[in-house]
Amino acid sequence: MEIFLAEKMGFCFGVRRTVDITMKIIENKEQNVITFGPIIHNEDLTNYLKNNGVNYVTSLDEVDPKKTKKVIIRTHGAKKEVIDNLKSMGINVIDGTCPYVMRVHRIVEKLSKENYPILIIGNKDHPEIIGVIGYIINDVPYFVVKNIEEVEQLKNEGKFEKLKKIGIVTQTTEKIDKVRKIVNYLMDFIPEVRYFKTICYATDENQGAIHKLAPMVDIVIVIGGKHSSNTIKLYEIAKSYCYRTYHIQNEKDLDIGWFNYNDKVGITAGASTPDWVIANVVEKIREFSEILRKGECHEVT
Amino acid sequence: MEIFLAEKMGFCFGVRRTVDITMKIIENKEQNVITFGPIIHNEDLTNYLKNNGVNYVTSLDEVDPKKTKKVIIRTHGAKKEVIDNLKSMGINVIDGTCPYVMRVHRIVEKLSKENYPILIIGNKDHPEIIGVIGYIINDVPYFVVKNIEEVEQLKNEGKFEKLKKIGIVTQTTEKIDKVRKIVNYLMDFIPEVRYFKTICYATDENQGAIHKLAPMVDIVIVIGGKHSSNTIKLYEIAKSYCYRTYHIQNEKDLDIGWFNYNDKVGITAGASTPDWVIANVVEKIREFSEILRKGECHEVT
Repeated sequence: MEIFLAEKMGFCFGVRRTVDITMKIIENKEQNVITFGPIIHNEDLTNYLKNNGVNYVTSLDEVDPKKTKKVIIRTHGAKKEVIDNLKSMGINVIDGTCPYVMRVHRIVEKLSKENYPILIIGNKDHPEIIGVIGYIINDVPYFVVKNIEEVEQLKNEGKFEKLKKIGIVTQTTEKIDKVRKIVNYLMDFIPEVRYFKTICYATDENQGAIHKLAPMVDIVIVIGGKHSSNTIKLYEIAKSYCYRTYHIQNEKDLDIGWFNYNDKVGITAGASTPDWVIANVVEKIREFSEILRKGECHEVT
Repeated sequence: MEIFLAEKMGFCFGVRRTVDITMKIIENKEQNVITFGPIIHNEDLTNYLKNNGVNYVTSLDEVDPKKTKKVIIRTHGAKKEVIDNLKSMGINVIDGTCPYVMRVHRIVEKLSKENYPILIIGNKDHPEIIGVIGYIINDVPYFVVKNIEEVEQLKNEGKFEKLKKIGIVTQTTEKIDKVRKIVNYLMDFIPEVRYFKTICYATDENQGAIHKLAPMVDIVIVIGGKHSSNTIKLYEIAKSYCYRTYHIQNEKDLDIGWFNYNDKVGITAGASTPDWVIANVVEKIREFSEILRKGECHEVT
């Protein structure tokens, strides 16, 4: 088998920054540090942190101010009130929010100050979006939509009637094609459509690289957390080119039955996939290749 | 022949308003009234006005304050400085600018006050666009483009480099498909794209109606001034469905050789085409039909 790595994949700037902050804390052997939510969507990493004394909580109720010295805010960010509440408990808050997500916070704050209704394209249950919504002020109407169908539904329900303007932001991991469709649709009947490009460059680059790689290989392995939005997007793109595309969390999920000896194997990884996990996957596929070369395993067609 | 009129065509609200203002002046036998530019792009109408004592000028130099009591600003509007200059000459300025064009003036004024570079989609030599440009203040950069190719060229010339935001308006007669392409393109690399829908509803409706009519007929007659942007757009749309599409200014341009006896004839007219011109065209085609029915003329295939 030949293995091809996507030109761009794995840790993005924002994730690397937050992981570095946390690793330093472990290195310095600091005690009583927790993270607010898993700092990135990667179980291998959160398990590693846990084993080194850095646990995560998912709500303010779980934070005991007496036992907590520092709270690290996850890469996806958090609601403004969470950060404010932690600070008012006298806790040292280390803001690990990705700077690109912080920009989205500033944009929705500004838009809502200027009384723009806001359309957020993304997953309403994702921590990034929950955080973004937490920065909307002035009770302006806002909508979170996953796709064009949901926008059309809102239109049919009359939610956009009399709307003179709308501000649009997206989850940083969104796909541009979907976003374009929605903007095109709204341009038809809302007099002012103010779109902010908040898809982050790393997402752009990782997606661009798999667009290039997937059509050239026989099988694609996408590495990343099951809840990682950007990983899921990579999977969708790869799958659109290559039927044999698999989403795995780490090398343990690999199955030799997926591979043929002559395969060209493409590999990509979500922005929250540590390099060591990628390395383990590559190593494991090399072992499979050796096994298949020796004819010790059946071929899949 | 069967004649089908487009569901929506001819005079729009803005044109009717300016024509009404001017007709009232003729009715009241007011003297020393001129218009700044032809009030609408229709020679039949401007000739009628001329024959009734209302001439037009095309520059401030032609305006003699001693001999001029009133100046009517054309439907397409004028630069702010033209209006200001006329007023400072002590002349009574009647603003015949279409209210939808006035809205574009207000938008570019506001955008430039807020330091947005401005992209204007339209024809840089058209009086509407010359007027719109006249409302840009603060020396913000602005670009006038006809199509996506011109936008790509500006990009290649590095004109958009380091641009953090852009405001977009269009000539009121633009085609939405072209505008969408340009917005989609800019969304890719400019962090904030602020689009204002300034295509007017009448243009929308007239275009919608010919989209519906043209595929159902054998020949389309588009009536309107040779310089009328919205008429040219109607012609382009009709032509994309129906090879036998003709752009005429009035009934005198019609040629019996274009028609077959069995034809279904579709008719549309630009927003500056007076109803009487449409009526004359319909009448003339009826006459052709009668001639062809009697077999007095050859058939065209």
